[in-house]
Amino acid sequence: MSDKVAARSKFLSVFSDLVQELQDVLKGYGIAADAIAWFTRNLEYNTPGGKLNRGISVVDTYVILKGYKSFNELSVEEYKKVAILGWCIELLQAYFLVADDMMDASITRRGQPCWYRVEGVKDIAINDAFMLEGAIYILLKKYFRNDAYYVDLMDLFHEVTFQTECGQLLDLITAPEDHVDLDKFSLEKHSFIVIFKTAYYSFYLPVALAMFMAGITDAKDLKQAEDVLIPLGEYFQIQDDYLDCFGKPEDIGKIGTDIQDNKCSWVVNTALKLATPEQRASLDENYGRKDSAKEATVKAMFNEMGIDKIYHDYEEQVVGQLKEKIAKIDETRGFKGEVLTAFLNKVYKRTK
Amino acid sequence: MSDKVAARSKFLSVFSDLVQELQDVLKGYGIAADAIAWFTRNLEYNTPGGKLNRGISVVDTYVILKGYKSFNELSVEEYKKVAILGWCIELLQAYFLVADDMMDASITRRGQPCWYRVEGVKDIAINDAFMLEGAIYILLKKYFRNDAYYVDLMDLFHEVTFQTECGQLLDLITAPEDHVDLDKFSLEKHSFIVIFKTAYYSFYLPVALAMFMAGITDAKDLKQAEDVLIPLGEYFQIQDDYLDCFGKPEDIGKIGTDIQDNKCSWVVNTALKLATPEQRASLDENYGRKDSAKEATVKAMFNEMGIDKIYHDYEEQVVGQLKEKIAKIDETRGFKGEVLTAFLNKVYKRTK
Ligand SMILES: [Mg+2]
Ligand SMILES: [Mg+2]
Ligand SMILES: [Mg+2]
Ligand SMILES: [Mg+2]
Ligand SMILES: [Mg+2]
Ligand SMILES: [Mg+2]
Repeated sequence: MSDKVAARSKFLSVFSDLVQELQDVLKGYGIAADAIAWFTRNLEYNTPGGKLNRGISVVDTYVILKGYKSFNELSVEEYKKVAILGWCIELLQAYFLVADDMMDASITRRGQPCWYRVEGVKDIAINDAFMLEGAIYILLKKYFRNDAYYVDLMDLFHEVTFQTECGQLLDLITAPEDHVDLDKFSLEKHSFIVIFKTAYYSFYLPVALAMFMAGITDAKDLKQAEDVLIPLGEYFQIQDDYLDCFGKPEDIGKIGTDIQDNKCSWVVNTALKLATPEQRASLDENYGRKDSAKEATVKAMFNEMGIDKIYHDYEEQVVGQLKEKIAKIDETRGFKGEVLTAFLNKVYKRTK
Repeated sequence: MSDKVAARSKFLSVFSDLVQELQDVLKGYGIAADAIAWFTRNLEYNTPGGKLNRGISVVDTYVILKGYKSFNELSVEEYKKVAILGWCIELLQAYFLVADDMMDASITRRGQPCWYRVEGVKDIAINDAFMLEGAIYILLKKYFRNDAYYVDLMDLFHEVTFQTECGQLLDLITAPEDHVDLDKFSLEKHSFIVIFKTAYYSFYLPVALAMFMAGITDAKDLKQAEDVLIPLGEYFQIQDDYLDCFGKPEDIGKIGTDIQDNKCSWVVNTALKLATPEQRASLDENYGRKDSAKEATVKAMFNEMGIDKIYHDYEEQVVGQLKEKIAKIDETRGFKGEVLTAFLNKVYKRTK
């Protein structure tokens, strides 16, 4: 078993405990058995099926901050606590994704039907999303109520949740799937959307949680983490947008749909900035339409405009800046640049 | 201006401040102006349009606990703080109602189209509901971060929110509007649904919040409040179910729809308990159908079965028990039975 597989499997083993503990809360309320079964299915269908990168990175970060060589050096109790913080991010993501799939009218997620499309679920998925979020605070209370940083964990989850919802709101009103208006797009809005919708909860949150549990909680250190992780998260999403259009399906494991879906992607925003009036007219006519000929026209234009090269220049530039920032991290209070390097290495030059 | 109108008008005046302060958070994030306008409309459309009983009762309870004669004796700062706790309940209710209307496919709410049915909103209402909930924690942090009971306020909101979602879940899977199965109904489920879906957030939460702010936070006192307010909230909802079927439209201000809507109401559950096999067969055939002749058949059966008398007997019994409990309240730590009497008097023998 590779280290990565072992790390994932140990992390997953905590989840079944948590399901049991959450079931016990409902049992304590005296709710009917069919509601417990429903909640269990909601948790199991929506929470553990993804890559679990966010959750596992809480453990990884904590291991680095505490100076352990591997997660195997943590006591059983310590591992469980830090893994729970990781699962709280996965629950937060499940809450967002169940709702996002409804708002995007998506069909599948992680190779299975979206939850709201499962037989008998439909709009009950809204309340199910609420309960996934609610599970976060049950777990935090159960495991962290007596820690001095309990209040900080709650404040952090509240703020990051609201930031993500703000990013989602701007995305929803800027790029509705059924109405194309490229005048609404801009690189500034793109930057806001990806930082708020993705970077805070996927990059900053895992590190900040591990920092609280490791006792590295000086505002200066949280700021050092944020100053690298937010642009890194933005870069990650720009790369995601780039790969959706320019990645090879055999590498990225899917066929990109951003052009047909009217996504407010970095690619189209960059093209809009550079477009001649003729190119702009063509984008207005062909972008965001469920039509593969129009999609091909847009793709040809993106190639013609050299978006590929612009992306690679951006990538080299941002990675250079991030490496510089990481080299200058002040480690005197216990924070470690290595945490940030680990994140950067997972993103840089990935193909999927 | 009557006392009640003055109380409502003062409470409402705080809301416009809060909208401004929440807008400022979004401005601080640097989000585009159209997203701030959207969020503002979400807050204003969904939060203040109801009776505001829950929110105002936080103020009323606090006034009684502190021994003031009226809310006019509170300092400006003290009034604002306690009113904010009230508005946090109204925000919580807005979050639930926006979602409930989607899940129930409702058409109107408080005399206007449900939010998801407003032009251009649709499923974005899901994210809007999330943001209404998020606003609660922004306000709590801004106004209570430095109070010793801040963590208790968050724990309380988390728990009551989750309890309400549990009640909503059982309601949704027990009484889906499009599939009648009276085998799923029971008075036990009805009791769970109304206590969890309504009583915790509408009755216990306002009092518990006022108690925290008034410094009356002994677990024994919270328990004394809960022990009266939960059965009182259950009685309130049973009365609501009763009035939906037996109330005069000119009194209750609407025409009841519970029978046609397949609601898991106290009335049908009581009827199911008493029904002869013939009556049960008729209920199976006629309950929960969008058909006024079938509705009339059901209503006639309810009358024939004497549900009206059963309700009045229940009411006298529960009110007697509640008065007894209130008379025995231990006031040695500062809690006051008068708080509970005020709630009981609002519910007993109301016609709307
Ligand atoms: Mg989506
Ligand atoms: Mg989306
Ligand atoms: Mg993508
Ligand atoms: Mg409803
Ligand atoms: Mg409902
Ligand atoms: Mg009713």
